[in-house]
Amino acid sequence: MTHPFPTLSTPAGPVPAGAPAWNRQRRSQMPSHRYRDVFARTPVPPLPDRRWPGNRLTEAPLWVPVDLRDGNQALVEPMDPGRKRRFFELMVAMGYKEIEVGYPSASQTDFDFVRLLAETDLVPDDVTVVVFTPARPELIARTVESVAGMRGEVVVHMYTATAPTWRDVVLRFDRDTLAEMVLAGAAQVHRLVGDDPRVRFEFSPEVFNLTEPDYVLDLCDRVTALWDARAERPVILNLPATVEVATPNVYADQIEYVHRNLARRDAVILSVHPHNDRGTGVACAELAVLAGAQRVEGCLFGNGERTGNVDLVTLALNLHAQGVDPMVDFSDIDEIRRTVEHCNRIAVHERHPYAGDLVYTAFSGTHQDAIRKGFAQHRASAAAAGVPESRARWDVPYLPIDPADVGRGYDAVIRVNSQSGKGGIAYLLHAGYGVELPRPLQIDFSRHVQRATDAIGAEVTPEQLWELFTATYLTPAEPLVVLHEWQASSAGEGVDELKVDLTVRGERATHNATGTGPVDALTRILAGAGLPVDVLGLTQQSLAPGSAAQAITYLEHRCPDRVAWAAGTGTSVLEASLAAVIAAAHHRAAAG
Amino acid sequence: MTHPFPTLSTPAGPVPAGAPAWNRQRRSQMPSHRYRDVFARTPVPPLPDRRWPGNRLTEAPLWVPVDLRDGNQALVEPMDPGRKRRFFELMVAMGYKEIEVGYPSASQTDFDFVRLLAETDLVPDDVTVVVFTPARPELIARTVESVAGMRGEVVVHMYTATAPTWRDVVLRFDRDTLAEMVLAGAAQVHRLVGDDPRVRFEFSPEVFNLTEPDYVLDLCDRVTALWDARAERPVILNLPATVEVATPNVYADQIEYVHRNLARRDAVILSVHPHNDRGTGVACAELAVLAGAQRVEGCLFGNGERTGNVDLVTLALNLHAQGVDPMVDFSDIDEIRRTVEHCNRIAVHERHPYAGDLVYTAFSGTHQDAIRKGFAQHRASAAAAGVPESRARWDVPYLPIDPADVGRGYDAVIRVNSQSGKGGIAYLLHAGYGVELPRPLQIDFSRHVQRATDAIGAEVTPEQLWELFTATYLTPAEPLVVLHEWQASSAGEGVDELKVDLTVRGERATHNATGTGPVDALTRILAGAGLPVDVLGLTQQSLAPGSAAQAITYLEHRCPDRVAWAAGTGTSVLEASLAAVIAAAHHRAAAG
Repeated sequence: MTHPFPTLSTPAGPVPAGAPAWNRQRRSQMPSHRYRDVFARTPVPPLPDRRWPGNRLTEAPLWVPVDLRDGNQALVEPMDPGRKRRFFELMVAMGYKEIEVGYPSASQTDFDFVRLLAETDLVPDDVTVVVFTPARPELIARTVESVAGMRGEVVVHMYTATAPTWRDVVLRFDRDTLAEMVLAGAAQVHRLVGDDPRVRFEFSPEVFNLTEPDYVLDLCDRVTALWDARAERPVILNLPATVEVATPNVYADQIEYVHRNLARRDAVILSVHPHNDRGTGVACAELAVLAGAQRVEGCLFGNGERTGNVDLVTLALNLHAQGVDPMVDFSDIDEIRRTVEHCNRIAVHERHPYAGDLVYTAFSGTHQDAIRKGFAQHRASAAAAGVPESRARWDVPYLPIDPADVGRGYDAVIRVNSQSGKGGIAYLLHAGYGVELPRPLQIDFSRHVQRATDAIGAEVTPEQLWELFTATYLTPAEPLVVLHEWQASSAGEGVDELKVDLTVRGERATHNATGTGPVDALTRILAGAGLPVDVLGLTQQSLAPGSAAQAITYLEHRCPDRVAWAAGTGTSVLEASLAAVIAAAHHRAAAG
Repeated sequence: MTHPFPTLSTPAGPVPAGAPAWNRQRRSQMPSHRYRDVFARTPVPPLPDRRWPGNRLTEAPLWVPVDLRDGNQALVEPMDPGRKRRFFELMVAMGYKEIEVGYPSASQTDFDFVRLLAETDLVPDDVTVVVFTPARPELIARTVESVAGMRGEVVVHMYTATAPTWRDVVLRFDRDTLAEMVLAGAAQVHRLVGDDPRVRFEFSPEVFNLTEPDYVLDLCDRVTALWDARAERPVILNLPATVEVATPNVYADQIEYVHRNLARRDAVILSVHPHNDRGTGVACAELAVLAGAQRVEGCLFGNGERTGNVDLVTLALNLHAQGVDPMVDFSDIDEIRRTVEHCNRIAVHERHPYAGDLVYTAFSGTHQDAIRKGFAQHRASAAAAGVPESRARWDVPYLPIDPADVGRGYDAVIRVNSQSGKGGIAYLLHAGYGVELPRPLQIDFSRHVQRATDAIGAEVTPEQLWELFTATYLTPAEPLVVLHEWQASSAGEGVDELKVDLTVRGERATHNATGTGPVDALTRILAGAGLPVDVLGLTQQSLAPGSAAQAITYLEHRCPDRVAWAAGTGTSVLEASLAAVIAAAHHRAAAG
């Protein structure tokens, strides 16, 4: 066999010594030796008595969206003023109370936007704006200038990278020189702002997660002392995982270590700022909160440089899904998503938690069956408890939250393709057409659907399902038997008489018969015309009033060496049943 | 101000009692009371002496892609046979040694694909195929039928949902009845397969993470006893987080509890199967491996029902990025991605770890500057160590791995927009045009770039940067001064003579002057023609041989009340310098 992927080389190195027989993976040629784990790169604090794994999330931390700064600086096309304003208004409408609004010393657009906020009433009284600056004199001055006259509270957020590689390669400062620069910047901020109680301070030792913990602690303590952190005017210490480098438990250890060893702890708001390079940003934020963090910086749907910042939407709805108020309104997730997509010009992925197009959808048969039963149970429990379904306890299999909580309908919950089973099919026909197929008919019909979907390979819509159902079970457009008129009447105890005007194979005539009911009578008439129908069972169902057909009958019959199904619709249950008998006669005769 | 988002209601509930003054978040109207946390839903084992937070990842677990089963059943359009085969071949080429290939009892397509594998040589000798079945007699029989004649090793994977809601609402079985069903299924599998050592068994208690741990333990132990698990023929126990319900540390506790309490532990391969409803699938898998899991089921790029299965690409490259061989080849991530996108018809997101379009890209000025310095340092260290750059230890800021490891170029690492600074601009001009701008010129040019990008709002390409550079610093198409011919010669100690044929403001003439060099002589000629140039400094640079211009000169001059820059190119350094003087004369005169 030729190699179908010539650019890939199936690992052909040795199976590692000591590997069990069941694991035949071989050493690859990936140059993993170029990297070291976090323990070889930085002194992670030993924390054998760590407490965070035993803690629980019981309330939301303070959420601080940084979309207008950290998110914006990672966009192919940064937001124009209209987009910035729209995004800001969205965050206010959702209920965020602290919002990082820009990096005013970095671009005129950012500066102008901060001025817009200072000079208009766009910022509600209870919303704090944060502005971001490096610890450099001219940039600090410009930043403080940008917020002059802001009505509400302001946080001036100063950052410096502190990790060894950044010190050595980028800044070319040793630890002491860097500390001097940080303290000089902090002093300048303090001097420019003064004692204005509406302005608070934030310091971020960037790349905290690769910085020596004791160096960070010392730096943080000196900054909080210089800024005179007090409980009435607390200082935010924000500890970024600027580039994710380890499993999230390591970050939690690092945060708990700082949390337990910080000076002036009561005058510090401990904040985290996780990124998502390893796909564990959400976990880092959650474990950090367990470890003592009180404030989380991130972006809506996880925008940000490279793999993005931690996603504040997922974090908040994760709390919601375990019974904790997210303190932010997500009741119309699609409006939120549309706005963010408009501003960022980046789409939210189909499988993005809580917001993607496919995340409330089940295609697989077992999932659909379980969801259908779960919905039924949910309706019953809500009714029993006397509460609206939208307020009743939620415990539907495979759906972590009720899609209605975030403004999603149930339309897309169940979708049918070749992987689907009877449950999903029955659900769609019920939701779309009001029909409740008996379970054996569900099984019979699902075989027809599977043959069709296996053949075409694609999803089928409710309309297509109904079309297939009609073609399979109802009387076709040109049937062997046409019923023109009928009249049923009682003919004594347990006997009915039926008079019909029928065309059978092109010949029209009036027929008359008695039976245990009109259906029985009709089968006698048809048998006499050479069209036997052996009825095994009938199920009737009224449909929604107002629809053209007000009733449907499902008819199980022997055909002749197997069991088959037919159906009929009509303006009454009786008419529907007669139509079902005629459909059965047609299908049996047509099958030969 | 009218409310710009009428569908969202800014949380207007109370600020929680006891909230600190700095947190003004209010209670929302989200119906979070409908949900309970995991501790109220299932008895999570108390594990105060948990060991996993102190463990480290030192080798890859056995990866088992389930794309052809679990992934496939969540696609809008399930894979056709061609796509299934292509995907299977990809996984083999990458080095996966155990692959779940289908759910043969669920659809004819799946059954036929398993038969294709059994009847051809598509499965290499050292690759194990896994087939998936519910614990139901007719489906087990069909599943075992599908693998008849398979040459290599086979795993028959039987699952049953075990969590209370599933037992009560979906299956309507109590614990004992469910256990009987599982054991009957296990017995049937064992009977049908017999002692064939090439066939092994797997059992998944679906929704493990919501099932009572002691019930799971008992069920697992009874199944491994029935299957006679021995070290030579170990049984796979796979513990799915079918729907994520808690922070990943809880899943780790659950896994460690089973790991420590299982019977026949040496005859069990402990496996996990995390989903991603909370966006923490990767973390769950990693912490579970710390807790004792030896095998991980997932999908490439995280496909799967709803938010998907855990992403095996991210997991493997996370190991790579911390120095552990992933045992799978990712040297051409774009080929892998293209193939998976073709098969699933779902795109990989721009910010997907390791594989998204934007994840090796920096737009922000500080990041670009750091990356540029990091690249320079990397080249220097590699040269000093005498190893190729692609094999040298990697420690470049903001880039967790060298994009070259996965076949990505450096082209897209740095991209410039209004958020970018001089570092990125200089990098792009160097990479694209070979020019090395002096630092003060970088600063000067970045102001021009920022004005342009602030105005247009969009990203600029290297070509656009070069165009802007040319328009800003080089001689324009219709200059005030045109140099037709020149001749330079020495005229004694420290004195050169320059003879030029010039058109100045439309008048052509021959000029002659001496100076400390040809540049000095030319400025004298131009000054005589009313075009003074006050040269402050010159930097010359040779360009790549073969390019039309072989040299470029950067010229700093006084203009007259500020410092400005001009540049010139030519076939020699001298010609480039004369061109730069003429450009400076033009710009100064044009500026007024």
